[in-house]
Amino acid sequence: MKSKPKLWGGRFNEATDQTVEEFTASVHFDQRLYRYDIVGSIAHANMLGRIGVLSDAERDSIIEGLQTIEARIDAGNFNWSMQLEDVHMNIEAQLTELIGEVGKKLHTGRSRNDQVVTDMRLCVRETIDHVSSYLGALQKAVVDLAEQEADTIMPGMTHMQVAQPITLGHHLLAWFEMLQRDRERFQQSRNRVNQLPLGSAALAGTSFPVDRQFIAEQLEFEGLCENSMDAVSDRDFIIEFVSNATITMMHLSRISEELVLWSSERFGFIELGDQFCTGSSIMPQKKNPDVAELIRGRIARVCGNLNTLLILMKAQPLAYNRDNQEDKEPLFDTIDTVSACLNVLAAMIPSMKVKRDVLRDATENCFSTATDMAEYLVRKGVPFRDAHEIVGKAVRHGLDSQQDLSQMNLETLQGFSSHIEKDIFSLLTAEGSVAARNHIGGTAPEQVRLAITRARQRLSA
Amino acid sequence: MKSKPKLWGGRFNEATDQTVEEFTASVHFDQRLYRYDIVGSIAHANMLGRIGVLSDAERDSIIEGLQTIEARIDAGNFNWSMQLEDVHMNIEAQLTELIGEVGKKLHTGRSRNDQVVTDMRLCVRETIDHVSSYLGALQKAVVDLAEQEADTIMPGMTHMQVAQPITLGHHLLAWFEMLQRDRERFQQSRNRVNQLPLGSAALAGTSFPVDRQFIAEQLEFEGLCENSMDAVSDRDFIIEFVSNATITMMHLSRISEELVLWSSERFGFIELGDQFCTGSSIMPQKKNPDVAELIRGRIARVCGNLNTLLILMKAQPLAYNRDNQEDKEPLFDTIDTVSACLNVLAAMIPSMKVKRDVLRDATENCFSTATDMAEYLVRKGVPFRDAHEIVGKAVRHGLDSQQDLSQMNLETLQGFSSHIEKDIFSLLTAEGSVAARNHIGGTAPEQVRLAITRARQRLSA
Amino acid sequence: MKSKPKLWGGRFNEATDQTVEEFTASVHFDQRLYRYDIVGSIAHANMLGRIGVLSDAERDSIIEGLQTIEARIDAGNFNWSMQLEDVHMNIEAQLTELIGEVGKKLHTGRSRNDQVVTDMRLCVRETIDHVSSYLGALQKAVVDLAEQEADTIMPGMTHMQVAQPITLGHHLLAWFEMLQRDRERFQQSRNRVNQLPLGSAALAGTSFPVDRQFIAEQLEFEGLCENSMDAVSDRDFIIEFVSNATITMMHLSRISEELVLWSSERFGFIELGDQFCTGSSIMPQKKNPDVAELIRGRIARVCGNLNTLLILMKAQPLAYNRDNQEDKEPLFDTIDTVSACLNVLAAMIPSMKVKRDVLRDATENCFSTATDMAEYLVRKGVPFRDAHEIVGKAVRHGLDSQQDLSQMNLETLQGFSSHIEKDIFSLLTAEGSVAARNHIGGTAPEQVRLAITRARQRLSA
Amino acid sequence: MKSKPKLWGGRFNEATDQTVEEFTASVHFDQRLYRYDIVGSIAHANMLGRIGVLSDAERDSIIEGLQTIEARIDAGNFNWSMQLEDVHMNIEAQLTELIGEVGKKLHTGRSRNDQVVTDMRLCVRETIDHVSSYLGALQKAVVDLAEQEADTIMPGMTHMQVAQPITLGHHLLAWFEMLQRDRERFQQSRNRVNQLPLGSAALAGTSFPVDRQFIAEQLEFEGLCENSMDAVSDRDFIIEFVSNATITMMHLSRISEELVLWSSERFGFIELGDQFCTGSSIMPQKKNPDVAELIRGRIARVCGNLNTLLILMKAQPLAYNRDNQEDKEPLFDTIDTVSACLNVLAAMIPSMKVKRDVLRDATENCFSTATDMAEYLVRKGVPFRDAHEIVGKAVRHGLDSQQDLSQMNLETLQGFSSHIEKDIFSLLTAEGSVAARNHIGGTAPEQVRLAITRARQRLSA
Repeated sequence: MKSKPKLWGGRFNEATDQTVEEFTASVHFDQRLYRYDIVGSIAHANMLGRIGVLSDAERDSIIEGLQTIEARIDAGNFNWSMQLEDVHMNIEAQLTELIGEVGKKLHTGRSRNDQVVTDMRLCVRETIDHVSSYLGALQKAVVDLAEQEADTIMPGMTHMQVAQPITLGHHLLAWFEMLQRDRERFQQSRNRVNQLPLGSAALAGTSFPVDRQFIAEQLEFEGLCENSMDAVSDRDFIIEFVSNATITMMHLSRISEELVLWSSERFGFIELGDQFCTGSSIMPQKKNPDVAELIRGRIARVCGNLNTLLILMKAQPLAYNRDNQEDKEPLFDTIDTVSACLNVLAAMIPSMKVKRDVLRDATENCFSTATDMAEYLVRKGVPFRDAHEIVGKAVRHGLDSQQDLSQMNLETLQGFSSHIEKDIFSLLTAEGSVAARNHIGGTAPEQVRLAITRARQRLSA
Repeated sequence: MKSKPKLWGGRFNEATDQTVEEFTASVHFDQRLYRYDIVGSIAHANMLGRIGVLSDAERDSIIEGLQTIEARIDAGNFNWSMQLEDVHMNIEAQLTELIGEVGKKLHTGRSRNDQVVTDMRLCVRETIDHVSSYLGALQKAVVDLAEQEADTIMPGMTHMQVAQPITLGHHLLAWFEMLQRDRERFQQSRNRVNQLPLGSAALAGTSFPVDRQFIAEQLEFEGLCENSMDAVSDRDFIIEFVSNATITMMHLSRISEELVLWSSERFGFIELGDQFCTGSSIMPQKKNPDVAELIRGRIARVCGNLNTLLILMKAQPLAYNRDNQEDKEPLFDTIDTVSACLNVLAAMIPSMKVKRDVLRDATENCFSTATDMAEYLVRKGVPFRDAHEIVGKAVRHGLDSQQDLSQMNLETLQGFSSHIEKDIFSLLTAEGSVAARNHIGGTAPEQVRLAITRARQRLSA
Repeated sequence: MKSKPKLWGGRFNEATDQTVEEFTASVHFDQRLYRYDIVGSIAHANMLGRIGVLSDAERDSIIEGLQTIEARIDAGNFNWSMQLEDVHMNIEAQLTELIGEVGKKLHTGRSRNDQVVTDMRLCVRETIDHVSSYLGALQKAVVDLAEQEADTIMPGMTHMQVAQPITLGHHLLAWFEMLQRDRERFQQSRNRVNQLPLGSAALAGTSFPVDRQFIAEQLEFEGLCENSMDAVSDRDFIIEFVSNATITMMHLSRISEELVLWSSERFGFIELGDQFCTGSSIMPQKKNPDVAELIRGRIARVCGNLNTLLILMKAQPLAYNRDNQEDKEPLFDTIDTVSACLNVLAAMIPSMKVKRDVLRDATENCFSTATDMAEYLVRKGVPFRDAHEIVGKAVRHGLDSQQDLSQMNLETLQGFSSHIEKDIFSLLTAEGSVAARNHIGGTAPEQVRLAITRARQRLSA
Repeated sequence: MKSKPKLWGGRFNEATDQTVEEFTASVHFDQRLYRYDIVGSIAHANMLGRIGVLSDAERDSIIEGLQTIEARIDAGNFNWSMQLEDVHMNIEAQLTELIGEVGKKLHTGRSRNDQVVTDMRLCVRETIDHVSSYLGALQKAVVDLAEQEADTIMPGMTHMQVAQPITLGHHLLAWFEMLQRDRERFQQSRNRVNQLPLGSAALAGTSFPVDRQFIAEQLEFEGLCENSMDAVSDRDFIIEFVSNATITMMHLSRISEELVLWSSERFGFIELGDQFCTGSSIMPQKKNPDVAELIRGRIARVCGNLNTLLILMKAQPLAYNRDNQEDKEPLFDTIDTVSACLNVLAAMIPSMKVKRDVLRDATENCFSTATDMAEYLVRKGVPFRDAHEIVGKAVRHGLDSQQDLSQMNLETLQGFSSHIEKDIFSLLTAEGSVAARNHIGGTAPEQVRLAITRARQRLSA
C-alpha cells in the first residue's frame, strides 16, 4: 500500500513503506498529548500574530480551526492517521484541510523538536499538580486513621521481630512522613519543568523575531529554556518526575506489604474492605488483598520505566535524536500507575477494620519491654551496656521458663540485678512503655496527638 | 454502577466497586492470550473426558463451544468485559452462556493459577520459535552483505579511533556471531519453557485423578512441572526470555549505533534506503536514520522490562501472589519490540549502499598499519615492546610532518630502525595488512570467505 | 609527581598525570585475575615457541618467570603498581625486570584486548563450576529437610492467605525446582563462555601465524571465537553469567523472605540456629534473622550489577572501547555475592528447627479444605462453578458463626447442598486433603517421597 | 575459631560462627563513616550530659576518648575488628577499652538504628556540598571555553546529521544548562537530608528525656525527623542523592560521547590533552580518549547503584531490617564515581584543542542553511509548509548536481521559487545563519555572549 505524501517529503526518492511507518509512528500513544499540543499551538499562533508573521485574520482562523479540532477529538470524532506519524502532524494536516492554505503558516518559526517538549512539559506540569493533590488526599486518610488509633497498642517490629510496643497511630504517621517528602519532592521539581522550550526550533533558534516571553506568559511558564540546543535535547524533567514517582511507589510498596501481612491470618491485625479484595476461582474461602498486592507489585513497572528513560538518554550526543520518541510510553505509564495507586489506596485506608485486641495480644509475651527494663537499670546507675547484658539474661530465663518479663516476680527479677525494685512493673507494660517515649518523634500517645496536629497544619500549608 | 456477579463471589458481602475493578482487571492486555487459553482448555476438557469427569457429550459440547468462541474472537465479534476481570473468566462465562450448565464443569481440577501459566508458556514457546527464525533471517541478510563486501577495506576502530585496516565483510561477520549466540540462547531456553503446569491447580494439585501426561502430549509439552507450588509461582521462563531478548536488543543497539554513525556526513560510509529514513518538519535537507535510532533506543524499554520482572519477583513468598499479574505487559512489550526490531533491521540491511571509496580513504593516512610495522620488526628480531616503541616514535614523526608511515621514504624509516628494508612497504598498505591476518578469526579476505561458508552451514543447521 | 614511562608511551608528548592515572587504573580490582592471566600467558608462550617466534630457551625462561611471579603473588610478595595500570602490564613489566629483554617478546601477536577477555572467560568458566556445585549442595540440604518433613502439614498460602493444606516437604521441593533450573542454566551457558579469544589481537587478528587451536587445547577451551572483532568486543558471557546469577538471587530472596516470615513471632513456624542470627544493640530480647535478611537484600546488588553491564554495553560501536573496563567490578561482586549467599544458606537450612505443632495449628480453622468440599460436590455431580458458589456460602456462614467447615455438623452442611453425606468429613481434614492430591506434582506425602527420589537422581546426574 | 563476645550476646546460646561473621560484617566498608560516627557520638554525649544522664566528668572522659580514637584512625593506628561487626561497635568497644566502664554509658538512649542514619545523613550532607562545588567548577570550565569559542562556527546536529550551523560556544552552553539543573537538584535535596534522626532509638523513641533539638544544633541539622519509625527506616535521602547523581552521570555520558566522537579521525573537531588519553599495548599510533570513555561508561555503575537501592527498599515492612545495611556500598561508590568524574572532566575541558577550520568545513556543503532559505521564503509570503517543500526540491537538485544551496546561482534558485532574490545569499552562509538566530536562547554570537554573562551570574549566585 502506498502511503500519503509526508509533510517533509520534498527531498526523498522512495516512499516510506508501511512496515516502517508502523515501526516509527507514535500517534497511537502521543495522541494523548492533543490538548497540550493545541493550547501550545494557539499560544504560538498568537505570538506569530503579535510579531506580524500572521495577520489578525490568519491568526483567528488558525485558532478557530484548532479549537474545532480539539472539540472533535474530545468528542471522539477525529480520524488519527498512522501515516501522519504523530499527534503534531495529524493536527496540522487536519488544520490545513479545515482552514486551507493559512494552516501551512502555523509551523513558522518552530520545529517538532521544540513543539513536542512544550507539550510534554505542559503534561508533566499538570500531572505534578494532580499527583500532589492525590498525595495530600492519601495523607489525609492516613492522618484520620492515625487519630482514631492514636492510643492503639501494637508491636513495633524490626527484622520482622517484635521490638518494642508502639501505637498504631505512631506507625501510621511514619507513612505520613514518607508521603510528605514525596509531595515536597514533586513540588520542588515543578519550576524546573515549567520553563518554555518554544522558540528553540530544531536546535538553534529561528530567524523570525519570536517573542518567547509572550508565549510563556500565555502558557503560564515561569521562565524560558535558556539554550535552544539544551531545550530540544533535555529530558531531565521527565526523568525527574519518574524518579520521584518511583520513590513514591517504593513507599506504597512498603505500605502495601504491611497491609498484606496485616491481613494474613498469621497476623490478623486488620481486615480490608471486601470491595478491595477479590476471591479465588478455585478456593471458595479466599479473600485476597489483591489491590494491596497489585500496588506492591507496581513499583516494578515504574522502576522499570525509570531505568528505561536513563538507558535511553545514556550517551546521546546533542541535540535531538529519534530515540527520544521512546520517552513517552514510560512517562504515560508512570503517570497512570502512580495516580491510580494513590487514589485506590486513599480509598482503601478508611475501609480498614483494625482488630485492636489482636494487636494488643501480639505485643505481649514477646519481651517487648526488655528495653524499658534496661533503661530502668540505667536510671539506677547501671551503665547501658551492662544493663543490656543483665536484661539479656533475664530474657534467656524467660524463654526457658516461658514467661514474659512482666510475668516474673520481683524476686526473680532481683536475681538479675539488685537495683530492681517494685516500681519497675509499671514500665514493663505496653502502656507504660509507650507513655515513656514522650519526646518529639516518640511513640507516646501524647506525642502522636501533637504530631497529628502538626501533620494537619503541614497538609493545609 | 453495580457490577456483574463474580464467578468467585459466594463468600463476599460487598460488591467490588468499579474503580477497583479497573484497577485489578487484566482483560485489556491478557485477551491477547486467547488462542493459548482455548487450546489449553480443549486439552484440559479432553483429559477430563478421558478420566470420566466429563461425559463424551459434555466434552464435545465444551470443545465445540470453545471453538465457536475462538472463531468469534478471531473475527472481532467478542465483547470483552472488564467486570469479568481476565481472559480466562471472559471465555468461561461466554462458554456457559453459549452451551449452558455444562460450561461450569470445565474448571474442574484446575485453577486460574495453573491455567494462566499454561497460557504463558504456550505463548513464550511459540515466540521463541518466531524470534529464532527472525534472527536467522537477519543473520542471512548480514552474511549476504558480508559476502558482497568480503574484500572491502575499511578502518577497524577501537576507542572510536582508527586502529587497523579490516574488511567490511569481517566487520559484518562480528554481527553474525552476536546474533548466533542469541539464537542459541533462545533455543536452549525452550525446553525449560516447555513443561506443563496444568494439574497443579491453585498450588497443591487436585483431588481429581488428573492425567497430566495426556495433557502434555496434546499440547506438545516435553515434560511436566515437577512440583505444583513451583509450577504456579515460577516466572523464570518469562524472565529468561526477556533476559535473552535484552541481550539481543543490546546487540541491535550496537549495530544501530554503527549504522547511525556510518550514515552521518562525518563518516559517510553508507547510505540507508530512503524508506528507512525520515525527514524533518523544519529542515528540508535532512535525511535522518530514524529506524536505526529507534532500534538503538528500544533496548531501553526491553531492559526496563527485564528490570520490572526481576523487581516484581523479588522476595515473593510462595505460592501465587497477585503481583504476578504484572508479568504480562513487560513480556508482551518485549515480544513485540524484539520481533519488530529484528524484522525491520533485516529489511534495512540490504538497502544499505556501501561507499567503498570513502571507507578506503578513511583507512589511509591514519597510521592504521603501525602494528604491521611493529610486527615486521619483531620478525626481524626486535622484541615486541621495543618494536612498539620504535614505531611510536615513527608515528610521532609522521604526525609532526603530516605523513603516514606508508608515505615515508626508506631512509626516514631506517632512521627509526636499521632492521627496516624495502620489503616493509607492501605491509604498510591496507591490502597488505588485512591479507597478513590470515588465520581463523582474522580479517584476511580469504578467512572472511571461509567464515562465510561456515556461517551459512551454521544457519542451515 | 612524575609517573613511570608507560609501555605504550612512544607517541605521546605529555605524561599522564597522577589523577588521571588513578581514574583510569584497574589494577586494584583486576589483580584478582592474576592466575588466569598467567596461565593464559604460559599457553601463549608455548604457542609462540611452537610457531618459532620464541626459541625453546626463550619460552622456558618466560614460563619460569611467570611461575615465579605467580608464586610471589600467591605469597603476597608482589608490589602492584597503579602506574602500570592493570594486571597485565604489572605482570609483564615484572617479567621483564625478572628475566630481562626476552620478557618483551611475550606480547607478540596478542593485545590486551584479547588477553583480558581470555582471562575473564577463564574466570567465568571456573566460577560456573563452583557455583554449580554450591547450588547442588544447597539443593541437597533442601532435599534432606524435605525428606524429614515429607508428612509435616502446613498451610499452603497464596496471596499470603491460607489456601490449602500442603506438606512442608512439598513446599521445600518447590525450592529444589527453582535451584535445579538455576543449575541447568549455568551449565548450558558454559560452552558459550568456553571459547578462546586469543589470536584476535587488537581487533583484526595478527600477522603472525598463530596456532589458536593449540592454545585452546592447553587451556581446555572447547572452541575458538570465530571472529576477531566480536572476540574483543563481546561481553555476552559476562552478562549471561550475571543474568543467571540474578535469577538465582531472586530465588534466594524468595526463600529468605519465607525464612524471615516463618521466624517472626506472628508465624512462629521455625527457629533458625543462633549462629545465623544476631542481636540488637539496644533491645536485649531480639533474635534477628540477619543472615536471611541480608540474602534477601543482596538480590538488589546483583540485579544492579546486571543493569550496569547492560547499560555499559548499550550502543557501543565495535570493537573494544575503554568503557569495557567497567565490566569487572560488577562481575566480581556478583561472583562473591552469589557464592557467599549459596554457601551460607546451605549451612543455615539444616539449623532450622521446625515447629510442627504450630504449622499444623495454622492449617486449621482457616477453611483450608474448602476446595476439597467443592471437589467433593463435583464428584457428586454438581458443576464446579456451582459447587464453588455453594462452598462460598458455607464459608460465609462459618465466618459469621466462627466455625471451620470441618466443625459444622452434617445437617448444617446439608443445608448448603443435599449432595453432602457423611463421607465428606474425612476430606475436610488437612491429612485427608493432602492425601487426595496424589498425582505427579501434587502434595500427597506419597508423591513427595517419589519426588524426593527423583530429585536425588537428578542431583547425582 | 571462637569469636569475641558480642555487645548484644546476653540472650544467645551459640556463638556466631566465623563464616556468618564475615557474611554479616560491614566494618570493611562502613569504617569510612568514622568521622561522622564520632562527631555524632560527641553531640550525643553532650546531650546526655545536659540532661543529667552523664556527669560532666563522664561526658568529658567520653569526648576525650572519642577524640583519641579519631586521631588514631586518622593516623592509621586503629585495629578494625570484623568480629565487632561495624564501625559503631568497633569505636564503642575501643572507647570502653580506653576509658573504662564509663564508655558503656554512651549508648544510653540511642540504638544503632538511629546512629547509623545520623552518620549517613552527615555523610550525604557533606557530599552534597562537595559535589555542588565540583559541578560549579566544571560549569566554570565550560563557560570559559564557551566564551573563547563564542563565534566558532560548527555543524549543529540532530539524528547525527548536520542540521543547522551553530556556534561551539552555544553548544557548550547547553552543557552548562544540564549541569546547572544538576546543581539545583542537589541543593534542593539538602534540607531533606539535613534532619536529625537521633533520639529515635531502635524505632519508638526512648524513655530518657532526650533533647533532640540540642543535638541538632550541635550537628547543624536544620530540623528533627518527625517520626521515630520513619527516621530509622527511611533511606529516601540516599536514593534521592543517587538519583540526582545518576542524572548528572547521564549528562556526563552525553558530554563524553561528544568528546569521543569529536576526537575521532572521522570528526577531527578537537584534540584532547595527551594527559587525558592513553595508548595501546599493540598499536603504537593510537591516542585513545580513555578518560572520556570511562566517564561515559560510568553512568552504568551509578544507574546500577540507583537500581540496587530501589530494589533493596521495595516492599520492606517497617521499621529497620538488616537488608538496609546494603545501602552503603552503592552510596559510597556513587559518591566516589560522580566526584572523580566531575573533577577529571573539569580538568580535561581546558586541555581541549579546538580545530576551528575542521568545524567550519564540516558546516558547509551539507545544506545546513536549507532552513534559512525556507524562512526567507516565508518572509516573502510563502506559507511555511510550501516553503519547506520548495527547499526540499532545491536540496534534491543539489544532491544530484553536487552543489550546496549557497553554490547555486540565482537563476537556478529562482527556478525553485520566483520569490528568490539576490539578498538570499547572505543568509545561506553559516555566519548569516547563526547571526539571524538572535533571540534569547538562540545561537547568534551576540546571544551567546549575553548567555555567558547570565551564566557567570548564576554561577556566583
